[in-house]
Amino acid sequence: MARQRLIVIGGNAAGMTAAAKAKRLGGDDLEILAFEKGRFTSYSTCGIPYFVGDLVHSEQELIARTPERLRQDGIDIHTRHTVLAIDPDNRRVRVADQEGREREEPYDQLLITSGAAAICPDLPGKDAQNIHGVPHLEAGLTVRQIVDQEKPKKALVVGGGYIGLEMAEALILRGIETTLIERGPQVMGTLDPDMGALVSQALEEHGVQLYLEESLEAFLVRGETVCGIRTDRRTLEADLVVLGLGVKPETALAEAAGIPLGIKGAIRVNSRQQTEVDGIWAAGDCAESYHLVSRQPVNIALGTIANKQGLVAGTNLGGGYATFPGVVGTAVSKICKYEVARTGLQEKEIQALGLKHTTATIDSKTRAGYYPDAGDIRVKLLAEKQTGRLLGGQIVGTEGAAKRIDVLATALYAGFTVQQLVELDLSYAPPFSPVWDPVQIAARVMVSKL
Amino acid sequence: MARQRLIVIGGNAAGMTAAAKAKRLGGDDLEILAFEKGRFTSYSTCGIPYFVGDLVHSEQELIARTPERLRQDGIDIHTRHTVLAIDPDNRRVRVADQEGREREEPYDQLLITSGAAAICPDLPGKDAQNIHGVPHLEAGLTVRQIVDQEKPKKALVVGGGYIGLEMAEALILRGIETTLIERGPQVMGTLDPDMGALVSQALEEHGVQLYLEESLEAFLVRGETVCGIRTDRRTLEADLVVLGLGVKPETALAEAAGIPLGIKGAIRVNSRQQTEVDGIWAAGDCAESYHLVSRQPVNIALGTIANKQGLVAGTNLGGGYATFPGVVGTAVSKICKYEVARTGLQEKEIQALGLKHTTATIDSKTRAGYYPDAGDIRVKLLAEKQTGRLLGGQIVGTEGAAKRIDVLATALYAGFTVQQLVELDLSYAPPFSPVWDPVQIAARVMVSKL
Repeated sequence: MARQRLIVIGGNAAGMTAAAKAKRLGGDDLEILAFEKGRFTSYSTCGIPYFVGDLVHSEQELIARTPERLRQDGIDIHTRHTVLAIDPDNRRVRVADQEGREREEPYDQLLITSGAAAICPDLPGKDAQNIHGVPHLEAGLTVRQIVDQEKPKKALVVGGGYIGLEMAEALILRGIETTLIERGPQVMGTLDPDMGALVSQALEEHGVQLYLEESLEAFLVRGETVCGIRTDRRTLEADLVVLGLGVKPETALAEAAGIPLGIKGAIRVNSRQQTEVDGIWAAGDCAESYHLVSRQPVNIALGTIANKQGLVAGTNLGGGYATFPGVVGTAVSKICKYEVARTGLQEKEIQALGLKHTTATIDSKTRAGYYPDAGDIRVKLLAEKQTGRLLGGQIVGTEGAAKRIDVLATALYAGFTVQQLVELDLSYAPPFSPVWDPVQIAARVMVSKL
Repeated sequence: MARQRLIVIGGNAAGMTAAAKAKRLGGDDLEILAFEKGRFTSYSTCGIPYFVGDLVHSEQELIARTPERLRQDGIDIHTRHTVLAIDPDNRRVRVADQEGREREEPYDQLLITSGAAAICPDLPGKDAQNIHGVPHLEAGLTVRQIVDQEKPKKALVVGGGYIGLEMAEALILRGIETTLIERGPQVMGTLDPDMGALVSQALEEHGVQLYLEESLEAFLVRGETVCGIRTDRRTLEADLVVLGLGVKPETALAEAAGIPLGIKGAIRVNSRQQTEVDGIWAAGDCAESYHLVSRQPVNIALGTIANKQGLVAGTNLGGGYATFPGVVGTAVSKICKYEVARTGLQEKEIQALGLKHTTATIDSKTRAGYYPDAGDIRVKLLAEKQTGRLLGGQIVGTEGAAKRIDVLATALYAGFTVQQLVELDLSYAPPFSPVWDPVQIAARVMVSKL
């Protein structure tokens, strides 16, 4: 067999996981060329708030594999190289190096792992300095440098999703007066509002000034730098604005090449991570996933999913066979005093699917009640009314609370009913749990309501 | 329907869970009479080591429901009452009150939840004072009083199972020079020896003097009180000896009544918790369970199982219908600096079943490697060689490690392969896990070995 050439667009989680796997399987028969538009490769995007908050002291700590290391592993990675266009008919990409010099590179197989970009609303002042999302490490480094060097007094975070909340907490840790505005009734819109309310409260106790149900109308600019924002209710001063409005798939390149897109503009893929165009594959934040509970395509930008899709794509590109069965929507975050986790569908998603559901919410303890430092935990379960099938779960609590979501994530993957949750042989000892684990206490309440 | 009378033997987890559930379902049609030979009802046996160690200050904190509270709930409980005999043909029990006065009580249904007793080897000196297991709260209170009042200088723990290890740690906390002897090659015989070795090391670092592969030959007695032990290798002094050799089902009463016993002398029950004698039920430490992985009967004395079996028995006795599908052998403990957990089958159990297996053991971190206080975690998985079916898992690690066993327990209940473990959508954020959870890292290694 002639040597095959794989080109990978993007040098982070999905792309480099795939490249490493493909190389291990394909060996010398596979040449791998990769282009990353930034300076950094294979880093933890999720670690950025901790780097800004100085819990992590150097950006180097966030990097799993440097370009040098990747090259040692047989991946010919080129950083600061931007792919400008894909030509599927002739199996070529056009690429620009850091000086803007363009060239064409042929491929046998192409893997797109172009990631996601921070959403920035198209409002007056949006191009001013000191307005940043943190979708990649360069942006994180910029925010950290502003905090270290310009020592802003007031920061504004726009949007109360995971990244917005983690960034707000980090900025408070750095001694900056921090305000967060959120359009919805509570922060953490991936939780139901009753659970999100606990998180809002924890943020306020941590010192974050919170304005809910308030919309951004404009960025205020002095000179070339942001100096505040205007909402539909008030004007707020700030030296630094962090965007926490989520991310959107970076798929302009794919779209221009005629690769079909799906939900939220993410690239449509089958379970082997193949796009609908021959020889082109996609994985990670730029690609769709299949949701095992809703049975619909979704686009969820998370490192876990990017890594799994990358592993599947890499196995297939290296000559093996693998499929990615899908996701159940699991996510976890530490927000001030609380650990916050969710999986499956939330109430508004269930309603949108036209399913009838029942909820059960319980308050319990993270350890046996008599054991020192037993903390609070609230668990909410959602189940299908007719069948008792688990549809989702949410957990907010103190230390040790959140990782319990993994039991629910496993149960969702397995398609369990809440009765089956009650039957599970989960671990118990006083330092770890009440005798019935809180997720099973909630399941028992649910069973009694069905 | 005429009013039915249920008699319950035993006033702890299984019995009182069952009684409460039966009363809620059966209401006024059901009279419930319960006999408990000790003074305490519905308490946490697992909490005893923490009470001895003074992490829990009063025995009252360990009690979930007092006799008064149980009576308010409609359960006519009599403490310090010993059931002497069961007469299944005439549906009566003979019972002695605290003054030894005997009477007969008729029943329509009888539930035996007589629990388990500490194993004490039949060796010279075994009846001396200051030799105690802690299978029930009275015994725990006695040990605590010895520690508080007699202030022993040297303690010996015989047996390195959960209770022995937790008690050794507690005694060190109380400032007592503590030695533990264990017949096996490592402590914690429910782990494979390679994992148990980590626990042995942690105990020694905590200050416990450990003698492995050493057998007890005699208790040494001065006056009426123990003053040491003799093993096959040495003589050791002690003012207090704690038995950590495990427990055996308390089933003499059942056996004398002709109720068929099974494994380890536990009462045989079907999935509704019925014994093979009409009108007699059993649940908790005195009863068998079905092991979902080995597909064999087992007897595992744990509060979680007692509670679940009690709930099932109570539902059936209250006029409902419930079954207990079985256990997977999950257990967790905190031993000095480590959290220790296991589920499923260990190597020697797999070999005894004649199955061929493969193992994968990995070292990882409890959090992202760069996140503060990321601790060590070791995960060992065992899978069936031909099919890749998960057979068991063991975890030893620092804070946050052990509760991950619940993912494996859920996977075992579901009958997953290790490939399915890799596919799970488990939660990730830097404060909680590396991007691949350690159990999935182990599963990936296993998949590559199969």
